[in-house]
Amino acid sequence: MGKTEERIARWIVETSLETIPPDAVRVVEEAIFDQIGVTLAGAAQPVGKIILDYGREAGGTPEASVIGGGYKTSPALAALINGTCGHALDYDDVGGWGHPTTVLLPTTLAIGEKIGASGRDIIEAYIIGFEVGYALNRSSRYNQMVRGFHSTAVFGGMAAAAAASKLLRLNPQQTMMALGIVASMGAGIVQNFGTMVKPLHAGLAARNGVMAAQLAQKGMVASSQFLESRAGWAHAYFGEDAYDTEAMVRGLGNPFHVQELIAYKKYPCCYGNHSMLDGLLSILKEHNIRYEDIAGVDVEQSYLSVVMLYDRPATGLEGKFSVRYNTALAIREGAPRIEHFTDEKVKDPALQEAMEKVHIHVRPKWAPTTGGLREPTAVTVRLKDGRTFSKAVPWEQIVATQQNPWGEEGLRGKFMFNASLSLPKERVAQAAQVWRHIGQVGDIRTALDLVRGDGR
Amino acid sequence: MGKTEERIARWIVETSLETIPPDAVRVVEEAIFDQIGVTLAGAAQPVGKIILDYGREAGGTPEASVIGGGYKTSPALAALINGTCGHALDYDDVGGWGHPTTVLLPTTLAIGEKIGASGRDIIEAYIIGFEVGYALNRSSRYNQMVRGFHSTAVFGGMAAAAAASKLLRLNPQQTMMALGIVASMGAGIVQNFGTMVKPLHAGLAARNGVMAAQLAQKGMVASSQFLESRAGWAHAYFGEDAYDTEAMVRGLGNPFHVQELIAYKKYPCCYGNHSMLDGLLSILKEHNIRYEDIAGVDVEQSYLSVVMLYDRPATGLEGKFSVRYNTALAIREGAPRIEHFTDEKVKDPALQEAMEKVHIHVRPKWAPTTGGLREPTAVTVRLKDGRTFSKAVPWEQIVATQQNPWGEEGLRGKFMFNASLSLPKERVAQAAQVWRHIGQVGDIRTALDLVRGDGR
Repeated sequence: MGKTEERIARWIVETSLETIPPDAVRVVEEAIFDQIGVTLAGAAQPVGKIILDYGREAGGTPEASVIGGGYKTSPALAALINGTCGHALDYDDVGGWGHPTTVLLPTTLAIGEKIGASGRDIIEAYIIGFEVGYALNRSSRYNQMVRGFHSTAVFGGMAAAAAASKLLRLNPQQTMMALGIVASMGAGIVQNFGTMVKPLHAGLAARNGVMAAQLAQKGMVASSQFLESRAGWAHAYFGEDAYDTEAMVRGLGNPFHVQELIAYKKYPCCYGNHSMLDGLLSILKEHNIRYEDIAGVDVEQSYLSVVMLYDRPATGLEGKFSVRYNTALAIREGAPRIEHFTDEKVKDPALQEAMEKVHIHVRPKWAPTTGGLREPTAVTVRLKDGRTFSKAVPWEQIVATQQNPWGEEGLRGKFMFNASLSLPKERVAQAAQVWRHIGQVGDIRTALDLVRGDGR
Repeated sequence: MGKTEERIARWIVETSLETIPPDAVRVVEEAIFDQIGVTLAGAAQPVGKIILDYGREAGGTPEASVIGGGYKTSPALAALINGTCGHALDYDDVGGWGHPTTVLLPTTLAIGEKIGASGRDIIEAYIIGFEVGYALNRSSRYNQMVRGFHSTAVFGGMAAAAAASKLLRLNPQQTMMALGIVASMGAGIVQNFGTMVKPLHAGLAARNGVMAAQLAQKGMVASSQFLESRAGWAHAYFGEDAYDTEAMVRGLGNPFHVQELIAYKKYPCCYGNHSMLDGLLSILKEHNIRYEDIAGVDVEQSYLSVVMLYDRPATGLEGKFSVRYNTALAIREGAPRIEHFTDEKVKDPALQEAMEKVHIHVRPKWAPTTGGLREPTAVTVRLKDGRTFSKAVPWEQIVATQQNPWGEEGLRGKFMFNASLSLPKERVAQAAQVWRHIGQVGDIRTALDLVRGDGR
């Protein structure tokens, strides 16, 4: 086996937890803990209720739990629902190639519950899937704001198929077929950011991964040239010569990257706002600035920034993708919280007034920047007394990255609040205890019993 | 409502069978008849068996029939399975934007069975879906061989969502949301042609359409700028400035096109071979040429022709996409039939020998051609006695197009053979009688009872 596709498949089959750095395992345990909370919170949101209802009506062999839904269904459908709920609030983690955990956890739990996998099996499959997605991502010059396909969907499907194949113990040929099948299973478009369909993208990627692996297991045959060929996945999504297949293999788990790349969200909104929010909130705190003191706020925005999609948001979901709205929230009410992103709240006259204080400066297309989310968003607060304060927090220095950790308190507090939106109080504590160290669980089904809820 | 998206949605809601030309209805009745046969044949193929088995295992609320599968499941899953089986042999019709009926029939039957629609409701929704797909297609310069996404998947999802929305009687806003949801539900890649995943593309499009309409009905919100925006579906799939949104609306049902565009397949292989096959077979017949007389066959192939994917096919499915293999079949065994496309048959030494007589001349990229399948494929037969005969059959003159009809005999004979691969003989005749004039059926469920089969 010498081709790119075969080498990736073989790497998936041959890699195991023994060769994965303990730091990667530690971070993924954390990420899973955070994700379960975020999913339980998402199940109580409008889009969560729609997808839970859809799944209940569609039915399916009850092999995989719908988190917070109170029922089980087929693995593919459970992955769809849990992935969508997990991304419903845009409160789930980011890193590497988009939103990894809301794709990889639903995928691995759905398969894992069906086969009775252990927590360590889940972590192993998650990490392998993550690294496959990341190797494909960093071997291409993919920019979702230029090509239009949501990177969580583009790389997520491949990552999910890799993870699902690993858990199912597919052989190299079957694993390659699973990746080839998922290569045809599509992608969300960026224009659906700020709508209920953005979370659906994560669910679709998770479902696609599960389905592709199950179909490969049954003998479905795909092309084995879905990366190298001119008519393949890489060419279709990245464009001609915008990728390097040799680098895809060379970079695979060499070294592992997940432990550097996962970042948690402290605010339930697009990560493109987090650099600005960290900068702005720290200026306000440090100088004890009240809303009444502020003359205006200037935000320097990348030309390609996704948070520009909604300058004047009309819905709560659009608010998550609006730098103007998040800036207004921060100066008027402090750190953004779940209840800030409702259709009613974005119409609040006090926030509408605060939004008028925000001035957005978009850097021109030809500015010498890296493009996308990785640029720090510079924010300047101008006070009525003439003083000005500026800050630009680099991506790595945002709080709750691995480089600037949030700490156990932050993570646990977030979980407890989120989980309480779908689970009774006594169950929340129990769930926290088990899910915080999921690597110690012998059969993932016992852990899932704690978070399926009663679907209220 | 002035935007492209709103105008398309309104057209879907406001158009009904009363304003659709009777010729369109007649042709779609024919197409549905042909498709049921092809689906029954597909259910007995290897990929058909895999997807039937997948669906049986996944389960689902039994609301929609799996044709030839012997069971019912949820509408989305039934659409996936029937769409995949319908395209399994690549024996289903083509026209407008790819393979329309293997997407639109599974979609409309799945929803139609759930709600108890009539045959006329199915035909109405099919035609509306077809025209939406076609309007999007002809308003763009989409070439699947350049962009890499299978046009059946790209346009099929939109067409299916339109058809499903119509059947569900969604209002204009919900219909627009269904199209916006399906805009994020992805696409097959061309590299999977000649594998089991190509038929899956049709199934995925059908399923996506069903799911999108059902989610829109439940209130899922998508972007309403999925066509006009720079980050939308049209931009992502077609590329910058490669489409005209105004033309999308202007061309919608103005006039209707389905009655000119649907072409049936006489041979169970890629339509890119059909011009060559019609030309070659007519030369052989007219001049009474035997295999032994032939020195060589020259085929002039478009640079962008999909049939070049497999010069030396290794599997039956690859054989369907190989002009060399189809040429060899024609000179050695006559018109290609279902049994010619098995993994064993492509290895047949007699055919391997015949393949050596075939010389493929690819026209260069810069030749003044239209590109793609619409070019006639010129074929020249050179005899050992020195005589040569040439023919190039234009797309419109291929037998079984609307311009050069096959006739009732051809269509019926194809159905009877195909249906017999999954249904007992007495059931085949009964099914033929009902499905040949599906517009007269009051409740589609009675017709589906005849073709669900017992899943042998």
